[in-house]
Amino acid sequence: MIEIPLPDSGAHADALARLDALVKPLGALGRLEELAAWLCAAHGTVPPRPLDDVRVVVFAGDHGVAGASAVSAYPREITAAMVRVFLAGKSGVNVLAGQVGARVRVVDIAVDDDLDGVPDEVRAYKIRRGSGAIDVEDALEAGEAERAFEAGRAIADAEIDAGADLLIPGDMGIGNTTVASALVAAVLGVPAEDVVGTGTGVDEAGRARKVAVVEAALARAAGRTAEPFSLLTALGSACAAATAGFLVQGAARGVPVLLDGVYSGAAALVAREIAPDAARWWLAGHRSTEPSQAFALKALGLAPILDLGLRLGEGSGAVQAVSTLRAARAIIAEMGLLADLA
Amino acid sequence: MIEIPLPDSGAHADALARLDALVKPLGALGRLEELAAWLCAAHGTVPPRPLDDVRVVVFAGDHGVAGASAVSAYPREITAAMVRVFLAGKSGVNVLAGQVGARVRVVDIAVDDDLDGVPDEVRAYKIRRGSGAIDVEDALEAGEAERAFEAGRAIADAEIDAGADLLIPGDMGIGNTTVASALVAAVLGVPAEDVVGTGTGVDEAGRARKVAVVEAALARAAGRTAEPFSLLTALGSACAAATAGFLVQGAARGVPVLLDGVYSGAAALVAREIAPDAARWWLAGHRSTEPSQAFALKALGLAPILDLGLRLGEGSGAVQAVSTLRAARAIIAEMGLLADLA
Repeated sequence: MIEIPLPDSGAHADALARLDALVKPLGALGRLEELAAWLCAAHGTVPPRPLDDVRVVVFAGDHGVAGASAVSAYPREITAAMVRVFLAGKSGVNVLAGQVGARVRVVDIAVDDDLDGVPDEVRAYKIRRGSGAIDVEDALEAGEAERAFEAGRAIADAEIDAGADLLIPGDMGIGNTTVASALVAAVLGVPAEDVVGTGTGVDEAGRARKVAVVEAALARAAGRTAEPFSLLTALGSACAAATAGFLVQGAARGVPVLLDGVYSGAAALVAREIAPDAARWWLAGHRSTEPSQAFALKALGLAPILDLGLRLGEGSGAVQAVSTLRAARAIIAEMGLLADLA
Repeated sequence: MIEIPLPDSGAHADALARLDALVKPLGALGRLEELAAWLCAAHGTVPPRPLDDVRVVVFAGDHGVAGASAVSAYPREITAAMVRVFLAGKSGVNVLAGQVGARVRVVDIAVDDDLDGVPDEVRAYKIRRGSGAIDVEDALEAGEAERAFEAGRAIADAEIDAGADLLIPGDMGIGNTTVASALVAAVLGVPAEDVVGTGTGVDEAGRARKVAVVEAALARAAGRTAEPFSLLTALGSACAAATAGFLVQGAARGVPVLLDGVYSGAAALVAREIAPDAARWWLAGHRSTEPSQAFALKALGLAPILDLGLRLGEGSGAVQAVSTLRAARAIIAEMGLLADLA
């Protein structure tokens, strides 16, 4: 049982009172006001502390699907190559994180490559080379889901101990939108047809193959989806388990977490099965174009902050919402009061 | 006839080619890719130049409505008081501009107050004290719409000459959502009932009174709405004319303009009647909660970048979209290429 602290309802009420006293019509700053009050509750103080130290952790790993080429527009080798792109600072999330001064760390959880020459710390939490093909076999061996979950918790702890004010989970892995769809379908009992999207850009025939893969995985895992670690073992992946651990530990430490797109949405659904109160510490950074994310966010009671039509993953959408969170903090910290009007 | 330059279609095509070559799936950065290509076309170069110098100009003025207290939740005196809040740096847009390093300038176009003690440059373009009550009289005297339009152009010129890379029109004025609704209804031929919203927060009875005011204004101005200056004279305001001039001059100088909410949307509709090609230089910063903005943006062919439920005005929504524009520039300027993948 992982204990999750409660956000401070007194600070939340104080924040709402202060927002109403600011020099603007009541409620005129819309979502910014809601986010400002949320941050006050998270930090237990009005105004909330600055969100100076923002950290993105990209969980990299290959996701097993038999005949993976059937469900992705890109070959499996891309995952390992992208790890090197993250390390070189040239990925989408590296560039977008640079815009808000956030750090990006990539961790190899299950890349199907030895990643020779990559710094040891990147591989320190590696669980296995690739996860199993969920349509024909379990994603993980016994015990691996738990180990990956604990790895995600340890990674969150390290970032928080180093000063993180805000955590963002990123993802990189060929096949991972298929696994995300399977997890969302399994947790919510939604048909594969409804949750599967086009991922990084497959055509309609590719999407039909993804639906078939998810249906096969759901059928194979029948009876093992109610318990979250058994679910992760049957049709998740090492990255999904690690991301879930990361999300839960952020909450356990009382540090806000900004979810990214389809992958962190799926991991969050599973994480909530493990620690139901953890969702109080999560915000949804952006709306992805993948349909399973909408199902996940609705179930989590989260509304995305941005909607820019993104489907890159990596944490690239969430990191842009950092500007909005900082704007929310700024209004409650810096605006004048109606009472001061001449 | 104000000449409007064409954005560079060659740079736009080059930008699309480069975006497709970046280390990401085709189109995966959604709206950011579209905005990056737009900026390249505006600047005539790939990547576009940084948007370092962003300037918000808040056009302040009282908007005439007979019995103004019937259509606004706030008294007319608020407009003058708010000018002092802008000068003190304590308004919503001041705070939000600070987050992106943008400057805020407030200009008194038609505040119904002498603003004693306020710096002269704030009042240098004042057209009159308050605009006429559009439900019972013309908003402006003959020639004032043209003078206000030229004032807006001169203000844009001054900001551009001082180095502006991006212009944002802001607005402050009790009664201004009523005038914006009237302008949108007149230009598009939409019933008042469809375009009038709750502004800064009137109740349903207040909204019904606003509808009646707009209907009276439209009836009074019948036959004079086709020519834009005659329209501004009959049921606009000095601020609406000045904002329209500001928008047109940004375009004439080839400087991107980021529209804010309902007020700049209405001014943009009128400005496009004056200079049809000017709209090529405009982007919509955010979706306002006021219904007339949706009509205006649809007619202008613009899709809002952010949707945060704001209804403050001042430029407060648009200034937050500066982060998104900078993110769009960053991806095309800084991301690696697919061709460099190992």
